[in-house]
Amino acid sequence: MNDDFSPEEKDGFYKAVFSRRDVRSHFTSEPIGDRILSKILNAAHHAPSVGFSQPWNFILIKDKKTRSEVKDSFDKERLRSSNLIEDPKRSKYLSLRLEGILDSALNLCVTYDPSKFGPFVIGRSSIPETGLYSVCCAIQNLWLAARAEGIGVGWVSILSNDKLKKILDIPEHVVPVAYLCLGHVTSFAEKPDLESAGWLGRLPLKDVVYYERWDNESDSNWQEIQEMIISNLD
Amino acid sequence: MNDDFSPEEKDGFYKAVFSRRDVRSHFTSEPIGDRILSKILNAAHHAPSVGFSQPWNFILIKDKKTRSEVKDSFDKERLRSSNLIEDPKRSKYLSLRLEGILDSALNLCVTYDPSKFGPFVIGRSSIPETGLYSVCCAIQNLWLAARAEGIGVGWVSILSNDKLKKILDIPEHVVPVAYLCLGHVTSFAEKPDLESAGWLGRLPLKDVVYYERWDNESDSNWQEIQEMIISNLD
Repeated sequence: MNDDFSPEEKDGFYKAVFSRRDVRSHFTSEPIGDRILSKILNAAHHAPSVGFSQPWNFILIKDKKTRSEVKDSFDKERLRSSNLIEDPKRSKYLSLRLEGILDSALNLCVTYDPSKFGPFVIGRSSIPETGLYSVCCAIQNLWLAARAEGIGVGWVSILSNDKLKKILDIPEHVVPVAYLCLGHVTSFAEKPDLESAGWLGRLPLKDVVYYERWDNESDSNWQEIQEMIISNLD
Repeated sequence: MNDDFSPEEKDGFYKAVFSRRDVRSHFTSEPIGDRILSKILNAAHHAPSVGFSQPWNFILIKDKKTRSEVKDSFDKERLRSSNLIEDPKRSKYLSLRLEGILDSALNLCVTYDPSKFGPFVIGRSSIPETGLYSVCCAIQNLWLAARAEGIGVGWVSILSNDKLKKILDIPEHVVPVAYLCLGHVTSFAEKPDLESAGWLGRLPLKDVVYYERWDNESDSNWQEIQEMIISNLD
């Protein structure tokens, strides 16, 4: 394989990045083909991991009873969360569609097992959280691969992990990192749902970049890249 | 933009996933062009984030004094870690090249700021760690975009975050998530360094996939996808 990327190959990569969405509706009932699902899981499995520990597992879930139990946990946590804010924000929050647990073709729980290849994992002694971080990299690979295959993914984070562990028989030492809903969709939204709903806007790129140290937004040694970042038209 | 991916677009995407490496050597002295750097940062900024909170910041570091201080922290933590294991593993560990802090073109610290758009962030009330997880998704976007642009990235996790916060003036409530080394490289390795060095091998995909619940590796309702995953030749 040639090390360099052709313009077409780059376009394909960036298309996945920019058109990926957190999908909570528009799922169709079409099942996900086995070959597509296998490709998506393989992309996830090729994520970087601290000390090459590959500490992830993927639990594929179709069973309706299991999903209903997860949905119950979502409903409880959503109500609980809504009580943390006041109207009109609360009503707006409650009007948002935030999960596709029952109407997506597949649910998928991604977990972190710190015991894998342990206890000594290269690079995990100083910052133990890097094991969890590796699992998140796998999730992002999975999300982008799904997009390339035309599959929508929604991450449901309004859940009780304690409940989830009971429902899926996950042992004490293993952490559920993400609960995902996957399926074919009628279309991918142009913008993130929360942006379209007017909840929040995307920050300008320049607001998230600092130079040499925290909070340093301008530095004469970095003038050209600063101008490039400011002129970013996103 | 057409929702569907052409075969060439898919190939470009998967090329980034499968040829991305954690790079610790082979950096060249060629600086990273401003346009390329801006594209890589923009890809990171288009990662998913819980409640669209975009809780990441990117601190770009070229200063040699700063980098030397970070390198000092690496050296100390590496020695400390090596004392957790015994020979012959310890000698092997100490022989591995694990960072490119001084010889890469650019260092980059990616941070998590939980206060951004807070205190109420949609979807973060039940599992607060999802804020950190969002930052990891941004890191993986950055890593893949860098690969597409021919830039190597190495994640240095053998560091003291307390030291790092002091060196980069990072405030108390902000978490350094990743310290990355970026630069052009003479080549990208065929396999992960730790695999080539015989430290660990890649697990078969089937070993990380369960069906319906934890530890269930086989299930008659999933026979076709199971066969597909077992026949995976990676």
